[in-house]
Formats: sequence, C-alpha cells, structure tokens
Amino acid sequence: MSDMTFEPGAAFARRLDAEDKLASFRDSFVIADPDLIYVDGNSLGRLPRQTVERVQTVVEEEWGCDLIRGWNTGWFEAPTRVGEKIARLVGAGPGQVVVSDSTSVNLFKLVMAALAMRPERDRIVSDVMNFPSDLYILQGCIRLLGDRHHLHLVPSADDITVDRQTLFDAIDERTALVTLSHVTFKSGFLYDAAAVTERAHQMGALVLWDLSHSVGAVPMELDAWNVDLAVGCTYKYLNGGPGSPAFLYARRDLQEEALSPVWGWFGQRSPFAFDLEYEPTEGATRFLVGTPPTISLLAMEPAIDLVLEAGLDRIRRKSIRLTSYLVYLADAMLSALGFTLGSPRDPARRGSHISVRHPEGYRINRALIEEMAVIPDFREPDNIRLGLSPLYTTFTEVWEAVDRLRRVVEEERYLKYSLERLAVT
Amino acid sequence: MSDMTFEPGAAFARRLDAEDKLASFRDSFVIADPDLIYVDGNSLGRLPRQTVERVQTVVEEEWGCDLIRGWNTGWFEAPTRVGEKIARLVGAGPGQVVVSDSTSVNLFKLVMAALAMRPERDRIVSDVMNFPSDLYILQGCIRLLGDRHHLHLVPSADDITVDRQTLFDAIDERTALVTLSHVTFKSGFLYDAAAVTERAHQMGALVLWDLSHSVGAVPMELDAWNVDLAVGCTYKYLNGGPGSPAFLYARRDLQEEALSPVWGWFGQRSPFAFDLEYEPTEGATRFLVGTPPTISLLAMEPAIDLVLEAGLDRIRRKSIRLTSYLVYLADAMLSALGFTLGSPRDPARRGSHISVRHPEGYRINRALIEEMAVIPDFREPDNIRLGLSPLYTTFTEVWEAVDRLRRVVEEERYLKYSLERLAVT
Repeated sequence: MSDMTFEPGAAFARRLDAEDKLASFRDSFVIADPDLIYVDGNSLGRLPRQTVERVQTVVEEEWGCDLIRGWNTGWFEAPTRVGEKIARLVGAGPGQVVVSDSTSVNLFKLVMAALAMRPERDRIVSDVMNFPSDLYILQGCIRLLGDRHHLHLVPSADDITVDRQTLFDAIDERTALVTLSHVTFKSGFLYDAAAVTERAHQMGALVLWDLSHSVGAVPMELDAWNVDLAVGCTYKYLNGGPGSPAFLYARRDLQEEALSPVWGWFGQRSPFAFDLEYEPTEGATRFLVGTPPTISLLAMEPAIDLVLEAGLDRIRRKSIRLTSYLVYLADAMLSALGFTLGSPRDPARRGSHISVRHPEGYRINRALIEEMAVIPDFREPDNIRLGLSPLYTTFTEVWEAVDRLRRVVEEERYLKYSLERLAVT
Repeated sequence: MSDMTFEPGAAFARRLDAEDKLASFRDSFVIADPDLIYVDGNSLGRLPRQTVERVQTVVEEEWGCDLIRGWNTGWFEAPTRVGEKIARLVGAGPGQVVVSDSTSVNLFKLVMAALAMRPERDRIVSDVMNFPSDLYILQGCIRLLGDRHHLHLVPSADDITVDRQTLFDAIDERTALVTLSHVTFKSGFLYDAAAVTERAHQMGALVLWDLSHSVGAVPMELDAWNVDLAVGCTYKYLNGGPGSPAFLYARRDLQEEALSPVWGWFGQRSPFAFDLEYEPTEGATRFLVGTPPTISLLAMEPAIDLVLEAGLDRIRRKSIRLTSYLVYLADAMLSALGFTLGSPRDPARRGSHISVRHPEGYRINRALIEEMAVIPDFREPDNIRLGLSPLYTTFTEVWEAVDRLRRVVEEERYLKYSLERLAVT
C-alpha cells in the first residue's frame, strides 16, 4: 500500500497528521496536558468532552431532580439502548447485545451457559496468550462444575502469535467451547475469528470471543461469522471511562437455550411484578442481573457515539497506518538498542497496540513515564505496550514516543529505577 | 417514650422539625424542587451536594488528566476503602467488607460459597417476603447445582411479619443456609438478626443477610452477632446513586474456606503479575471479580461519609420518630378512608419505610405522583411505600404526604388513572 511507505524524521510525522482524515476527532477529547504522550488508550481510553456534560446531566438533573423517575425516562432501557449501539460496532443485528456487569462476570455467565449447552463434552480450548482474568474465570467454572472439564491452552511458539493449525488441531469432538481474545492483550495478535469460529462449529463446539482489545478498533461481523457468544470491555478503544460496564453478545437462535447461571431481576420477564418465581426474558436481556451502575453506564454513551460517527472502516485504516508507522520507526530507531518487536508484522493480524520488547523493559517503561511524559504500559516479562487509539493518537505522538524510548536507552535514564514492581502497572 | 407522643395538625410537624437534631443534614443534599415531597429514598436516595463535586473531580481530573495513573492514586483501593467505611455502618471489623458488583451478583457469589461449605445439607431457608431478586438468585443457584437443594420459603400470616417460631422450626439439621432480608422490602419488617443467626448456628446452618433495606437506617453488629455472610445495596439509605455498586461481608474466620465461584482478577493475589493460574487473595477481597465501575463507585463515597458523620444512633432515633409519626397520622387521617397499615406497629421491628395499604393503592399512588407532588412507590398488590430517610426527610413532609394521601381519596382524584401497570414503578 502506498500509504504504508514511511520516511524518518518528525517532519514526516507532521505530514501524516496533516493527511489524517480523523484528525479532527482529537478535538472531541479532553487533552488536559498537550505535552503528555498518552499511548495507553488500549488500557483506559481518554475522556470525551461530551462525557463531561453527560455525566453532569445524569448526576445533577436525572438523579438530582428526576430522582426515582429517572428509571422511567431512560435508565431502565440503558443496558439495551447502549447495547444496540455497540451491536453496530460488532456486526450484530438487534436484540443480541446488552451492557451488563464486568467483562469477567459476563464471561462467567456465558461460559456457564455454553458448557450447559454441550453437557457431553469436557474440553475447553483457549490459549496461553488469553487475558489471565479470562483464564481465571474458566478455571473457576471448571471447579464449580466438579472438575469434569479440562482447559486446554494452545501454546505460542513465539509469544506473539498462535499457529492456526495448532489451534485447529486442539479443537476436537470433545471440545465444548473455544474461547479466545479476539486481539491478545500482550502482543496484539488478531485472530481470524471467522475461520476459528467455522472450525469450532465443524467440530460441534461453541465459540466465545473476548472482544475487549478489538472492539472500537477492529471491524467485526459477529452475525456473519456465526459467532455464538462474545463479551467485551468498554473502557479501552470505546473510551467508556474507568471500569465502565462491559457488554455481552448472545446470538439470537441460541438465546432460548442459553441460560444465565445468575438469575437476576433485570433478566426477569416482569421485574416489577415481583413474582416469587424467576422466568427469564426471551432475548439477550436474560443475561442481565442486578441494577446496573447507571452513572458509569450512561457516561459511556457519548463515547460510543463518537466511534459510530467516525466509523470503524476509517478507524481501522488509521489504526493500521499508526501501528505500521510505529513498527517502521521501531525498526529504524530501536532495534539497534536491543528492542525487538513483540507484535505481528502483518497488519492484518494485529489490533491497535504494539508491544516492543527489551530486557530492561520494566525500567525503561518507568523512565518513560517519570521523565519523558510518555505513558505506555508494561506487561511482563519485557513488553512495553503502546496503544494507538485512532480517534486521538497522532502520528507525531508515535514519532515522539519512539524517539523518547530511544533517548531513555541511549542516555541510560532507566538505570536509576528499581526492578521492584509497583502494585498496579 | 415521651418523644413518641404526637398531636394532629401541620403546626406540630413544624415543631418536630424544629426539635430535629439532624435537620441540618438536609442542607447536604440537592433539593432541586422544594415543593416535591420525596418519600422514595428507600428506593433511590437523594443526591448529596458533595457528590456533584466528587463526580466532577473523578471525571475531569482523575480520568481526564491522570488517565491510567488514576489506578495508582486511589482507584485500585476504592473497593476496600469504601468497603471499610461501610464496615463501620454494619458493625464489622476491618478486612471483611468490600464493594463489588451488584447486590444480586454478590448474593450469587456468597450463596454458592456457602452451599459449598455445607455440602451434606440440602435445604435453603428464606421467606416469602424476601426481595424476589434474592429468591431468583437462590433458584438459579439450586438449578446450577443440579436441583439437589430445595428452597423453603417461610410464610407470613399477615403479609407484614414472619412468626419467629415458624422460622425457627424451618431451620433444621438439613439446612445449609438461612438467607433473609434484614428489613423486608414491602412491609419494612425488621428481623431480630442476632436471634435468627444464633438459631441457625445452633442447627449448624450458615446465615446470609441482605442488608439492602436496613444499611444506613438501622444500626447493626454483624461481628457481634457472629453473622457469616451479608450483602447490601448502596443506593437506598446510603444515597450512593442509581445502581451504585453493592457491598458484601464475609466474616474473617470463614474467608479461608469461602471461595467465590467467579474467579476474578481483582480477587487474585497478584493481579498485575498476570499469572495464568488463579490464586485467591486471603481476605474478603477474594470475592472481587472484574474492574469495578469506578465512577459509580467513587460517586458514593461522600454519601457514605455523610451517614458516618450523622451517626447511626441518631439516624435510628429520628427514623423511629418519623415512622411512628407517620403511623400516628395514618391512624388518625387515613384509616377511615379504607387504608390499613402494611408495616409492623412495633418500632423495634421495622426499618425506615412504612407501607400503607388500600384496595385502590395503585391508582392512588399514581395520583399522588402526577397531581400532588408526592413521590412514594407502589408494591403489589396494594402497598404504597413511604420511605423516610432521616438525613433529609422532614416531619412536615410526612404530614404533607399523609394529608395529600387523604385528599387523593376524599376528592376521588385517583379514579381517572388506569389500573394498567407501568413497566417500572
């Protein structure tokens, strides 16, 4: 692609910014400190300007003035209303996506539902690059079901990708469920979800995708791919705010059979009838549980509107350009300093974050944050993750981030930091 | 008690307000419409003034400026920091209360943990007055565990109270768990939690209290009562905001054995080590699951501080005075119009809301809201619930609410409303 030919130097970065058709979206976000290079939007997205106003309205008008009447004027429908907006980002028709609980709780509900739909099968397939929190949920489900299942973790030869055939071979006639991160949290490897889903279905298994690191950055077609179940986080590329509630997808034709293990009144047919017997709703809403954290839930709506407005095709195009530029610069400026690429080289096989690896990665990351006004994050053992969020990350920021990485190592600025890990990184 | 002798007329209400030692706390809340009589704080508490500022700080400074660094400067500890504040309201020593998920999800986690601790027992005891959402969770747990357990619901002879001996007789050597609402949602009946807990322990059963309708209004001593497990909602008398996350209590000496069925990374010993194997933390934090909805979680902190500042003894004293005054007025002004009391007459056996029952309750409630600027809520089949929140409900409001109830019936204002139920009531 011609727009993937890059040149060295900051001037070229400015040229890329000048050509950027999404550049104006940066103005939709609060940029409190213009000198700060924030490349951690894959962990916590920036604050959209409109969110400030929305939260104020929710708190001061809807809660403060409307009080309990807020439930009749928009709160009660929020899990489905916001869910339907997310549905448009994941290629899902109506009635299949709801916002509810955390990613982990949603995963628990769907895994338990899936395993109950394949009672005769005892294998769960995932991979070693899946987010550990997802693996913990799986381990808990296995324990809960009496250790009858086993978790098969497909290995990775290079810590960056998973070999397609190795994965396919692991999916067999004993497999109840295949569950993977669509984009892996560390290397940013992007699965061919359509192909994996097809393979799982050929073997009679169900598929559950964790879209946390792809939603809002990578276009997807859950309906067209015939995906069974999915969950996803909303505070990364969707910019929903710290701990904003997660979403889940349950394909329409599975909804009657798929039953949540957590029978909540928001998933009850007539919650305000206060019947003593649970009767689940018919749609994906049966996976709703308790009263949702409404301020956090409503806070994320303007953020999702921004992603819809920008459009995932344009977002993906810029994302690939950003990550490709970063890979180009890393090759040119960092490889001689002991850095290696911790992400796939093929843009079609990666999401919107890039990991660069260095034996001194932890201390380099600390120095970047403390001294260089660059905020990436660190993932053990040696990955510095740089999340490039197409709605607000500029090419100049990418150039600066790489140049400051170079300086931290060349000037040995990292040596003064301890190897001891902070609690939260 | 001399301070429970009341006189008719609005002037007496004003005298009660003048004597009210908590009166000034009303100024700590946003009273957007001073003419609106809000007696639904038992469903959604009012907005504290300080919350407005706190939310603005969380959004604009902590999220907008600090970005991911917010996790290192207060967010990560929030579930335990806010949990410890709630601990002081429920009589719990440190390390036993955390804020996490919704009440229903917390209940699910603790019920599953409790049943696993009594594997040889197959009975769960609750009552017909428990909040239906709690019963749904229990029904879901029973189904999940292969229908090996049965749910015994203790009846109520009068729809207001549960007979102590009937309950005690239901708790037997087959009973794994007794779980009840400390204050029942409809009648406001307040259990003698210490006595019920003792009875359960005599029979070898565990006890799980749902404190949703009592916390913040009724003093309690979970540690002294030797309670095993508890959950509670924070948006009623704690004024935490719509859907603010719930809390849970797990007694210290049970924590090693009690294991959550939902293995979340916030309950993992070293969440940022990203180990592939789950290892639970040692404290109540093992019941944490995913990333908490941080805006909703932090929004509730100033509200809880207000309750701590007022003190539960003063709150309880005013609560009893408010509910006793309401009962006095209902007897004097409403009983001739077909109303009956739907709550216990003994103040020691009720929480801070009072139900008045009327065959036309649904339409009367609608007329009150639409025409009389009074907001209670309605609970099937005939209960108009009036929640009296000691930090902001005035005696004059109680007088006005009762007087307007009288007018709605005397003037037959309710007749124009449909009997058809709104979706959310």
